[in-house]
Amino acid sequence: MELIVDGWFHEKNSMWPHQATSLEVSEVLASEKSKYQDILLFKNQAFGTVLVLDGAIQLTEKDERVYNENIVHIPIMSHPNPKRVLIIGGGDGGALREAVKHPSVEEVVMCEIDERVIELSKKYLPGLSAGFSHPKAKVVIGDAVQYIKECADCSFDVIVSDTSDPVGPAEALFEKDHYTLLKRVLRPDGILCSQAGCIWFDLEIIQKMMKFSRELFPTVDYATFNVPTYPYGALGFLLCCKSNEINFKEPLRTLSHKDLDELDISVYSQEYHRGVFLTVPRYIKNAM
Amino acid sequence: MELIVDGWFHEKNSMWPHQATSLEVSEVLASEKSKYQDILLFKNQAFGTVLVLDGAIQLTEKDERVYNENIVHIPIMSHPNPKRVLIIGGGDGGALREAVKHPSVEEVVMCEIDERVIELSKKYLPGLSAGFSHPKAKVVIGDAVQYIKECADCSFDVIVSDTSDPVGPAEALFEKDHYTLLKRVLRPDGILCSQAGCIWFDLEIIQKMMKFSRELFPTVDYATFNVPTYPYGALGFLLCCKSNEINFKEPLRTLSHKDLDELDISVYSQEYHRGVFLTVPRYIKNAM
Repeated sequence: MELIVDGWFHEKNSMWPHQATSLEVSEVLASEKSKYQDILLFKNQAFGTVLVLDGAIQLTEKDERVYNENIVHIPIMSHPNPKRVLIIGGGDGGALREAVKHPSVEEVVMCEIDERVIELSKKYLPGLSAGFSHPKAKVVIGDAVQYIKECADCSFDVIVSDTSDPVGPAEALFEKDHYTLLKRVLRPDGILCSQAGCIWFDLEIIQKMMKFSRELFPTVDYATFNVPTYPYGALGFLLCCKSNEINFKEPLRTLSHKDLDELDISVYSQEYHRGVFLTVPRYIKNAM
Repeated sequence: MELIVDGWFHEKNSMWPHQATSLEVSEVLASEKSKYQDILLFKNQAFGTVLVLDGAIQLTEKDERVYNENIVHIPIMSHPNPKRVLIIGGGDGGALREAVKHPSVEEVVMCEIDERVIELSKKYLPGLSAGFSHPKAKVVIGDAVQYIKECADCSFDVIVSDTSDPVGPAEALFEKDHYTLLKRVLRPDGILCSQAGCIWFDLEIIQKMMKFSRELFPTVDYATFNVPTYPYGALGFLLCCKSNEINFKEPLRTLSHKDLDELDISVYSQEYHRGVFLTVPRYIKNAM
C-alpha cells in the first residue's frame, strides 16, 4: 500500500527514472503479495480498473485493448493459416480473449506462472478474463520455459510473449537462449511476437534483441505504438518469423470492418497494423 | 512554485483529470508570471529542460522534435511548392527552426503573443530558439488573429497552428470562426496544420473540429502520434487543405535519408509521415 501516497499511485521505478505516470486512486480493490510478486488492483476514474505488478502498471481497462489486440492480431494476421497459439504470461487474460476470436485458430495455450493474477483478473477484470472459459483456451499454471521444454511434440504457429518488463524477474525471457528455445517449438511459418520494451528508454535492450533475433530468424521487425498508461506512453513489439516470405508490415489476410465489429476488435485494423511499423522515429530506426 | 511538491512536478489539470505526468525537478531555471500566463522552466534528468505554461507541459528537450518536426514537415511535405509559412504561437522557436530548413520556403512569419516565452527560450532553450535569427524568419510579437486581420495582401502556403490546448486561453483558436479566417489567408493549394488535442480525452472537441473543417475545406485528415511528455503520451494534428487534390497520407515530395541528415531532421521521414495517419485506433477513427 506504500505505493499510494495521498490518494495517488506514482509509477516511480529505476527502469524509467526521473519521471512517473501518476494515477488517482478512487478505490483499492486488492493488494497482496503472491508467491512471485506484489499485486495491486485499484480503480481510477479516467482509466477504470488498473493492474499493477511489482509497482509497474500492467494494464488499465481504458487502454488495454491497444496492447492486447495488437500483440495478438499483428502476428496472427501476418500468418497464412494460424492454428495453434502459445501465450507466455498474459495472466490477466486479455491476449487470450483476442487469440480465440480467430476462426482458423483451434487451440490457444496460455502459460502463466502466477495463478493469483488469473484469479484476481477473474474477480476484478471480467472484460479481460472472459476468454479463460472459451473452449479453444487451455490454461497452464507454471513456468513457460519448463512447459516448453517438457511438452511432447509441442509446436505452434504463433507465440505471443506477453510478459512483464525486460529488466527484473522476466529478464531471462528477453535473452537469446530463450528465443532459441521458442524458435524450436515454432512451426516452419511460425511467428513470435514479444513485448519488447520502449523505444525511449530501452533502446540498448532493443538493439541487443534485434541483433540476436536476426541471427536466429530470417525476418525480424519492430513496431511501436501509443499506450497511454505505459511509461513514456509507448510500448514496442519485436516480431520474428522463421519464413523469409513474410512482410510484417503488410497483413497477409484481411478483416473487413464488419468482421472486426463482429469479433469485437476495436483498436486493430489493417491500417493500424501498417502504421505501427512506420512510426518509429527516424534516429531510433537508424539505431536499430 | 506551488506546482512542484517534494521535488516533483505533477501535471494535474482539469483538462485531463485523475491522472498526471510527473517529472522530477533537478533545477528550477525560471518561474514567473508574464502578461499572459505562468511560465515555468526546469531541468529533468530524463527529459532535459522542460517548458510549462499555466501548469501544462509544452515541451521537453528530449521529445520536442516529435512535435516540432511533424507539425511542420507533414504539411510542408504535403504541399507542391511551399514558399510562405505562418506559425501561430510557437514562441519556443521549435516550429520556426524546422520551417526555415526547407529550400523552397522563402519566408516564415511567426506570430507569438507572449514575448517572454521567446526571451526565455532564447536563454534556456538554445536548441529550439536558434531559428529566430535565421534570415527567412520574421518574428511578430502580437495576437495572431489581429495580425491576420490587419496585414495587407497577407497569404500563405502553409499555416502551422502551434498553440496551447483547446480548453483554456487558446480556446477561440479551435473554433470555426478562426478557421474561416485562416482559410481566407491560405493560397489556393494552402494547407493548415493545427495542434488538435488528444484522441483519448479530447474526442468531442476533435469531432467538432473535424465537422466544421469539412464544411470549410475539401480535404481534411487527422494524425496522432506518441509524444512521451504530453498527457496520455499522445497528441494529434488536424490537417486541412483548400485543394481536393492533396492526400495528406502520401507526402508529395520526398527527402532522402541523406537530405534528412543534412537538414538535421531526426524524427520525421516519409515512413513516419504515412504512419501517423494510420495509427488512430479503429473505434476512434469511426467516431471521427
